[in-house]
Amino acid sequence: MSGSVFGTIFQISTWGESHGKGVGVTVDGCPAGIPLSETDIQQWLDRRKPGQSKFTTQRKESDQAEILSGVFEGKTTGTPIAIMVKNTNQRSGDYAEIASYYRPGHADYTFDQKYGFRDYRGGGRSSGRETIGRVAGGAVAMGLLKAVGIDLFAYTKEIGGIRADPGKFSREAILENAVYMPDMDAAARAAELLEQCIREQDSAGGIIECVIRHVPAGLGDPVFDKLDAKLAAAVFSIGAVKGFEVGDGFAAARARGSENNDCFCKGGKKTNHAGGILGGISDGSDIIFRAAIKPTPSISAVQETVNRDGEEISISIKGRHDPVIVPRAVVVVEAMAALTVADALLTGMGSRVDTVREAYTGRSVSI
Amino acid sequence: MSGSVFGTIFQISTWGESHGKGVGVTVDGCPAGIPLSETDIQQWLDRRKPGQSKFTTQRKESDQAEILSGVFEGKTTGTPIAIMVKNTNQRSGDYAEIASYYRPGHADYTFDQKYGFRDYRGGGRSSGRETIGRVAGGAVAMGLLKAVGIDLFAYTKEIGGIRADPGKFSREAILENAVYMPDMDAAARAAELLEQCIREQDSAGGIIECVIRHVPAGLGDPVFDKLDAKLAAAVFSIGAVKGFEVGDGFAAARARGSENNDCFCKGGKKTNHAGGILGGISDGSDIIFRAAIKPTPSISAVQETVNRDGEEISISIKGRHDPVIVPRAVVVVEAMAALTVADALLTGMGSRVDTVREAYTGRSVSI
Amino acid sequence: MSGSVFGTIFQISTWGESHGKGVGVTVDGCPAGIPLSETDIQQWLDRRKPGQSKFTTQRKESDQAEILSGVFEGKTTGTPIAIMVKNTNQRSGDYAEIASYYRPGHADYTFDQKYGFRDYRGGGRSSGRETIGRVAGGAVAMGLLKAVGIDLFAYTKEIGGIRADPGKFSREAILENAVYMPDMDAAARAAELLEQCIREQDSAGGIIECVIRHVPAGLGDPVFDKLDAKLAAAVFSIGAVKGFEVGDGFAAARARGSENNDCFCKGGKKTNHAGGILGGISDGSDIIFRAAIKPTPSISAVQETVNRDGEEISISIKGRHDPVIVPRAVVVVEAMAALTVADALLTGMGSRVDTVREAYTGRSVSI
Amino acid sequence: MSGSVFGTIFQISTWGESHGKGVGVTVDGCPAGIPLSETDIQQWLDRRKPGQSKFTTQRKESDQAEILSGVFEGKTTGTPIAIMVKNTNQRSGDYAEIASYYRPGHADYTFDQKYGFRDYRGGGRSSGRETIGRVAGGAVAMGLLKAVGIDLFAYTKEIGGIRADPGKFSREAILENAVYMPDMDAAARAAELLEQCIREQDSAGGIIECVIRHVPAGLGDPVFDKLDAKLAAAVFSIGAVKGFEVGDGFAAARARGSENNDCFCKGGKKTNHAGGILGGISDGSDIIFRAAIKPTPSISAVQETVNRDGEEISISIKGRHDPVIVPRAVVVVEAMAALTVADALLTGMGSRVDTVREAYTGRSVSI
Repeated sequence: MSGSVFGTIFQISTWGESHGKGVGVTVDGCPAGIPLSETDIQQWLDRRKPGQSKFTTQRKESDQAEILSGVFEGKTTGTPIAIMVKNTNQRSGDYAEIASYYRPGHADYTFDQKYGFRDYRGGGRSSGRETIGRVAGGAVAMGLLKAVGIDLFAYTKEIGGIRADPGKFSREAILENAVYMPDMDAAARAAELLEQCIREQDSAGGIIECVIRHVPAGLGDPVFDKLDAKLAAAVFSIGAVKGFEVGDGFAAARARGSENNDCFCKGGKKTNHAGGILGGISDGSDIIFRAAIKPTPSISAVQETVNRDGEEISISIKGRHDPVIVPRAVVVVEAMAALTVADALLTGMGSRVDTVREAYTGRSVSI
Repeated sequence: MSGSVFGTIFQISTWGESHGKGVGVTVDGCPAGIPLSETDIQQWLDRRKPGQSKFTTQRKESDQAEILSGVFEGKTTGTPIAIMVKNTNQRSGDYAEIASYYRPGHADYTFDQKYGFRDYRGGGRSSGRETIGRVAGGAVAMGLLKAVGIDLFAYTKEIGGIRADPGKFSREAILENAVYMPDMDAAARAAELLEQCIREQDSAGGIIECVIRHVPAGLGDPVFDKLDAKLAAAVFSIGAVKGFEVGDGFAAARARGSENNDCFCKGGKKTNHAGGILGGISDGSDIIFRAAIKPTPSISAVQETVNRDGEEISISIKGRHDPVIVPRAVVVVEAMAALTVADALLTGMGSRVDTVREAYTGRSVSI
Repeated sequence: MSGSVFGTIFQISTWGESHGKGVGVTVDGCPAGIPLSETDIQQWLDRRKPGQSKFTTQRKESDQAEILSGVFEGKTTGTPIAIMVKNTNQRSGDYAEIASYYRPGHADYTFDQKYGFRDYRGGGRSSGRETIGRVAGGAVAMGLLKAVGIDLFAYTKEIGGIRADPGKFSREAILENAVYMPDMDAAARAAELLEQCIREQDSAGGIIECVIRHVPAGLGDPVFDKLDAKLAAAVFSIGAVKGFEVGDGFAAARARGSENNDCFCKGGKKTNHAGGILGGISDGSDIIFRAAIKPTPSISAVQETVNRDGEEISISIKGRHDPVIVPRAVVVVEAMAALTVADALLTGMGSRVDTVREAYTGRSVSI
Repeated sequence: MSGSVFGTIFQISTWGESHGKGVGVTVDGCPAGIPLSETDIQQWLDRRKPGQSKFTTQRKESDQAEILSGVFEGKTTGTPIAIMVKNTNQRSGDYAEIASYYRPGHADYTFDQKYGFRDYRGGGRSSGRETIGRVAGGAVAMGLLKAVGIDLFAYTKEIGGIRADPGKFSREAILENAVYMPDMDAAARAAELLEQCIREQDSAGGIIECVIRHVPAGLGDPVFDKLDAKLAAAVFSIGAVKGFEVGDGFAAARARGSENNDCFCKGGKKTNHAGGILGGISDGSDIIFRAAIKPTPSISAVQETVNRDGEEISISIKGRHDPVIVPRAVVVVEAMAALTVADALLTGMGSRVDTVREAYTGRSVSI
């Protein structure tokens, strides 16, 4: 099992290595009738593309999405949607050296332990390019969310300890700064911090927040398939994620029950400490979660490690690496959240017998 | 889908409501040949049983595990292991009132939205009694972990902001205090805080930490089925969990790459900021994660809410409720972690063709 | 993996051995709001119960179904429905001998090869009692089928070469004879043949036919999850099934295209050689399939085999055994078909985006 | 759900329509270390390619397999193997007409019912080209089977009632005649029959038999995931399959128990009526099954049907169509069987705790 399949009904299967022929995704189980074009997908891919700012790698990867199947006359047909992005800008030579040793903070060692060997070029399957399949699949999922009126977006909440101020929140700002923060002032300070990281041959981490609005109440399942548990798995499956919390999250562990409970009132809830999910099921208010992202493990500073022969050595990782993963991961978080909600929409349709009956009424044989 | 099935190969299916005839679990896919008795399971169940201390409800539930199938001559047979615990101490009358309104912080409202109605007695399926099936299943999983030499345990790291001091860590202490802390001093202070919560008709939350030792390197899968993503989903599926982090977790988001990277050395890693998992795959060092638990939502203090007719009302929740969920949830966290690792052991056996070949060598027809 | 879980959304998990404490099933994913009582389930179980006629074993098993969870105020709640039947009439002594050797036509040898040992009492998990969980689960599924207007029934088409005459088909007759044939004359001749089998210490096989009416067009999926492929797996998972065919089945392999094609006409199709499924998807006409059942492997006549030490021996199987499995398997076939269709109804609800949108319209937060 | 994902651990996801950009498959969960090249896959694809004889369509499809990921230095890496075959020879114009009506025996009508519309060009997703993904995936699975010593092959047993004589069985003959029969005489007679079908603008069906040798005893699971049930689903998921039987199959329904039981003897079984599977688990003898294939539904003869407006019309299907599907389906049957056995090998590794322990012994942290 290599675990590259995600979802129960709305299901994606991704493939591809950093330095192979390309990367891609097949979306199976997407309902028929959703408008979809390569442009729809490209808009999403462009947000994770490198070379967008000085804080992302300067590789010129065109990352053009090509739809290979599952769309006919501009709409999804209900059959598998295969999407491919060709790899065009790899320089395998850059990576030949890392074949022989284990980079700290990377999966080189664990791949060798699991599989006996690894495609070491650019990280192979554990490269950040793996997320292209997720984002392309997420773009398809967004089409379904849009069809039922759900609004989903994420942004950088914090970089290297610099937080976006909720009081200055501006949704428009998110796409207007290089770090995707909803607060231009914080974004400017984060930019300075990243400049410093580059000078110091070091890297920073941060926190991404995601908001999902207009979710129908009743999505998600009690017990193991709680909507928050599914979101946790989805988001934690993104490389570099080390923490996940919903609503007040870890802060709730320090609150009293009288503070943390959200009282119901006419029209909803007075507060939203819970982050839109109660008992694993959406309550109709905004779903809010955060993911903690570790600092980029590839740094130019000298590090100690061992090689495949077990000898201790010193290394300095060359090549083009982002001083921070967070901004490019924002759209990946959105994609994983969209995929999770899309699947919950489809798996949860039959929770009441009346809805099942209605869905099949009139599906008789009348030619 | 009610989502009460967990795992791919080592799979459990739980059932039961607070005030039905009982609760239980069926474990499917457990390897044959593992010693298992009702006593093995009971030891685990006793740790989540109410009435153990003044901080847990005083209901006298005997919670006796009965193995109904899948064990023959003291060993698992490889076929489904059904375990049942009868409900014996319900007083449905206590709960009749809550049929008509939505308790803050509970799943009453969301169940109604999802299913159209609910079994309101004692929370029905969203009751804490639901975790009995998890714990019984986890006890079976622990038998498999033990067979491959894995050591797994959890404890209360923090209650209401009072933290166990890592410098005073004592594994023996965990089972010697009412709040399952590995630090007797912190435990005493936490006990005082809980007394105060009771007096104030309020409740507290906290943090549980889990350590998994001697995990073979190479467990877990890249991409979606990362071992940490699976643990995140498993732990987040426990009611009241609002946050999850591995290794340094959220703190990693504020560290520099040079601090957060774990350098490899002869025999392993110099540090363990990663918490034992790199790229979703175990690296052989200790797996460490934490879960944030919200304060008990059932409090006696007056709260505002609405009833099923949408009228705003004031309520005060009666009955016997814990001022804190954390201590009883410790064994539930252990159970979910054990189930996750057990499943990873079985799904990951075929990662190298040599291991597959060896497993089937000699499985010929020789009668 | 012991493979005792069936279905994707409407999912059952069965457990239990012939001589353990009982057998049972947990149904997860059944929609809320379906009327369900123990009587509903008992009616189905009574049709597979032994001791009904001289052609079924004379063991007096009461086989009383007990619903343990998931039903509240007479309706399914959407959460797991656990059903148990206690074992009451086992005499383990009868079976002690078979621990040491491999019965021809049974799974004794293969269980030993797979698991290293087996619960040999009464066949353990491979006993016919395993089907009780299927039938109880199938009874729940029938409630969902009924809710959408589907009519599903099966009968004995053939025993030991004696066929029910389609020209004499009577649905009422099915439950009026000991072999569940829709043709009383054929039933009488089959009864004679079975008498002869008993005298000769031998057994007979046969064919079961199942008809599913008023299935909405559009159920099932192209490619791997074709509705007929799902039915094939479901029915072939019943012990003793050796063949499965849909519509004209094997006869279609000898027909010409011009004969086998069903021409469409106003209101449907002129013929139904296809058996109601085209390209894996229901076409709205009757779904018709047949299963071939092998003769009961337990016969009193002397047979040769080997014991666990590999020595060749002669055996004569004692105890109470049916001369034919077919009649008691009819309701098991119905159950597996009902479970398959129920799951197809739930997994297929989201095939069009319009249906998804409609299902969630009005699921807003309005308290 | 469009159901284009197959398998639990060794899992494939296929995509592609007849007249889209291509067709393909992603294999996830294949163990690392299996030699694999495009040539390995091409050999399999070439056997289902059209234009091989006058009984297959004369379209010149090159059907060249391209491996896009998951293979490094000539061996599988354990990560997803994506394989694509570009569509090169479509003439959409041929099919424009069929957009408006429902071809008898095809899935046109049922696709419209399920999805609301369809990609009508060349059958879209229900085209025979869909099987390319299966065959490419099956070629990968064969690498795993080979690694554990399993030999799997299929052939045409019967076409239009003309049977290959078991007494004249020659494995070499299979690839030496246009209909893949193991009996050259029968093949010659089948060829004559197909000539006649062409002259009569009609088509024929047939039966494919598959043999799997050297399967380890103990593969497959009791209850729902029986190895024969899995094979049934796999093979029945191939378009045009209408029947499936294992061992004696339907003939077993007419045999007596004393005839049908296979007596065990030193070294195995005296006979193999069961077809190598007992209680759903392989017994180490040859696994043998047969699939009934319906006649090609596309025939040039005039047929009656209705159009999308419900009007009754007469049609004659133009274009290039095989008078028989059977020969090209032989390799598809092999592929589906190989995929099923590969998955059973991986899901079944953990049936005994000793095997689990051994697989992880030495997987410690020793750098």
